[in-house]
Amino acid sequence: MASVIAASPTASSTLADRIDLLAQVTVHSGLGLRAGQELLITAPIDALPLVRRVTEHAYKAGASLVTTMYVDDEATLARYRFAEDASFDHAATWLHDGIATAYRSGAARLGITGADPSLLGQQDPVKVSRANVAASKASRPALELITRHEINWCIVASATPAWARVVFPGEPEEIAVQKLWDAILASSRLDNPDPVAAWKQHSANLQQRAALLNEKRYAALRYTGPGTDLEIGLADGHLWMGGGTVALNGIPCLPNIPTEEVFTTPHRERASGTVRSTKPLSYQGTLIEEITVRFEGGRIVEARARTGQEVLERMLATDEGAGRLGEVALVPHSSPISASGLLFSNTLFDENAACHIAMGQAYSTCVQDGDTLSPEELAARGANESLIHVDWMIGSGTLDIDGVTASGEREPVMRAGEWA
Amino acid sequence: MASVIAASPTASSTLADRIDLLAQVTVHSGLGLRAGQELLITAPIDALPLVRRVTEHAYKAGASLVTTMYVDDEATLARYRFAEDASFDHAATWLHDGIATAYRSGAARLGITGADPSLLGQQDPVKVSRANVAASKASRPALELITRHEINWCIVASATPAWARVVFPGEPEEIAVQKLWDAILASSRLDNPDPVAAWKQHSANLQQRAALLNEKRYAALRYTGPGTDLEIGLADGHLWMGGGTVALNGIPCLPNIPTEEVFTTPHRERASGTVRSTKPLSYQGTLIEEITVRFEGGRIVEARARTGQEVLERMLATDEGAGRLGEVALVPHSSPISASGLLFSNTLFDENAACHIAMGQAYSTCVQDGDTLSPEELAARGANESLIHVDWMIGSGTLDIDGVTASGEREPVMRAGEWA
Repeated sequence: MASVIAASPTASSTLADRIDLLAQVTVHSGLGLRAGQELLITAPIDALPLVRRVTEHAYKAGASLVTTMYVDDEATLARYRFAEDASFDHAATWLHDGIATAYRSGAARLGITGADPSLLGQQDPVKVSRANVAASKASRPALELITRHEINWCIVASATPAWARVVFPGEPEEIAVQKLWDAILASSRLDNPDPVAAWKQHSANLQQRAALLNEKRYAALRYTGPGTDLEIGLADGHLWMGGGTVALNGIPCLPNIPTEEVFTTPHRERASGTVRSTKPLSYQGTLIEEITVRFEGGRIVEARARTGQEVLERMLATDEGAGRLGEVALVPHSSPISASGLLFSNTLFDENAACHIAMGQAYSTCVQDGDTLSPEELAARGANESLIHVDWMIGSGTLDIDGVTASGEREPVMRAGEWA
Repeated sequence: MASVIAASPTASSTLADRIDLLAQVTVHSGLGLRAGQELLITAPIDALPLVRRVTEHAYKAGASLVTTMYVDDEATLARYRFAEDASFDHAATWLHDGIATAYRSGAARLGITGADPSLLGQQDPVKVSRANVAASKASRPALELITRHEINWCIVASATPAWARVVFPGEPEEIAVQKLWDAILASSRLDNPDPVAAWKQHSANLQQRAALLNEKRYAALRYTGPGTDLEIGLADGHLWMGGGTVALNGIPCLPNIPTEEVFTTPHRERASGTVRSTKPLSYQGTLIEEITVRFEGGRIVEARARTGQEVLERMLATDEGAGRLGEVALVPHSSPISASGLLFSNTLFDENAACHIAMGQAYSTCVQDGDTLSPEELAARGANESLIHVDWMIGSGTLDIDGVTASGEREPVMRAGEWA
């Protein structure tokens, strides 16, 4: 696969060269795009330079057609500033249904992330939540095809001025964007002499770690750290995953670039205890900081946050499953993203800097034979269902995690944030 | 209606103010957007400033949601440079079907034109034609809703650097863009103290001209000028239209800004003689200059062009109806766009500078009760059917047009390019 990469980065590589290299890694390692496949991209309008390079390499790889749907933060803001109240229960169902049709017809999917994390921070949280619920409902058929891994898909990041301002608030815009690109490209292993080979190796390491955990068949994980004393039961027949996956269309892909996590499906009724967040959560444009929640019988019964409390409460009230767990993920504290010391305010990066849990929808692929089970069968295994899937970070250099066997014995899994 | 306009232009208006005014005229006079309507925009990515202003005014007018699909010329070019041959018979059917669904659900439609007219001039005309046929087939269900005026829709223009370079080839980019904006805004009656009132008056004038021609019930039009001696039979029960229209959803709209034409449906089997183009035709990125064609029994039997001959021939060979007429339109030679002396290389402007005819698909709205007739009934009246609808200019200051009555008498309609 390395032969598809035209050039490796050198000390003198320009930013344009390195963005081109990210595009190549995205098309080949991330999407595994096949000749004749259509490609559907969503991207912030400021990600235009990366989109153009991806488009070029997708056509070189034989894409039948590349269609990009750009999102303009200014247009989103105009809605909150000027639209009538009824607008916030409306979504472009026709577009989401069209996208689902594209997936069913064999299209691959690339999401480019890079929007302003603080975009909606000043807007009415009730409207933000309503608009999100409407969009979640409309996009559900398309999203299910993604979460079930029916098609090959990938998410990568592009630095944008608005995002860079949040990550490097003191810097002039040009410097901030350059620094954010550096951080994205380093985290995405682009500074390796052969990034495709590096991703192959790293993906194999994560798959091996998942295989070890699958052999253990732990009934639960026990988290202990400052402010945290939590036991999370795992779903019956849960599967640990990490690194690349083979989509149900038979195409190997790497759904997240970067990725550092191994993850599985917890049991929706088996979490109890208290847990404290270790990084802020950027949700719908609001920063939610210093979250502490208490679980009983799998459900959050108490939730506090230093900032964003109202947004947190609305998120947890989205539907019945929003206050229950859909994912549990392990990331060593020494991961390159964590080592950067940056708060990206973007889940793709921050979730790969620390152990995390997610509220809401579970991945059926993290349950044995999950893609053949009915929603009722999945629920019986403990897999949660919700319109939301929101990751938040609970890992740190002071977190210990034990695996709890079916007979109740405890074994060390992580100590002081590292694999035990 | 004038009260919705926040400010009139003054001598000191900035370009940004005038673009904002164009956005207001587009939303109110052009689309007649109703509260609760969704709005779907397509635009070149360089039209971002106009899109943002339209989005704001659409939300202020009560739009439930504004969705913009941006087209990037660079992505289009990448396809021609790098895609495999099979790509050119492929189209995003899922997207066009989704758009048709949006129209059927009550969305309004805004097209912003401004792409590089010479974009595909250097590309393989066979591939250009194949891609166009594939896109035409895929978009047909959506396009039919537009041509039947099922919904309120409008096309306006935004200056873009690529387009400005073609219109003002000698000028530095910044000056060229400024000049193109000036030309667009002047043609769009934006320099009038009350542009909404000006459009109301102008639209009424065009409607009155159409009413006069409808009273005449001419059987044919006879064109005489340098290189032109042509008789075009009109469809049985043809209707002349011009200016604003009331869409079948009951909403009055002005489908083209600017517009100077009155137009109707010719009979697909009743054109004979020779006609010469008076302006170049920009088709799929190729300039076709100095076209001369000969009609027999409504069909082009001979076609020549000084440049773009191959593209012209392919266009006429698209399908059975591509070599027959779908529209005939009358524009006085003194129209403001003609008076500007500019060749815009963009149909929205050039077709409003001169009398023109269109090859291909007819508008069913230009036939009495056309929206209630079956395709067979429309064909029996003489309305043409095709995947294409391509306008080209045949008017000039030396063109005479007579109306031919059912009994064969001739009356002057235009003399030396002006209304007789």
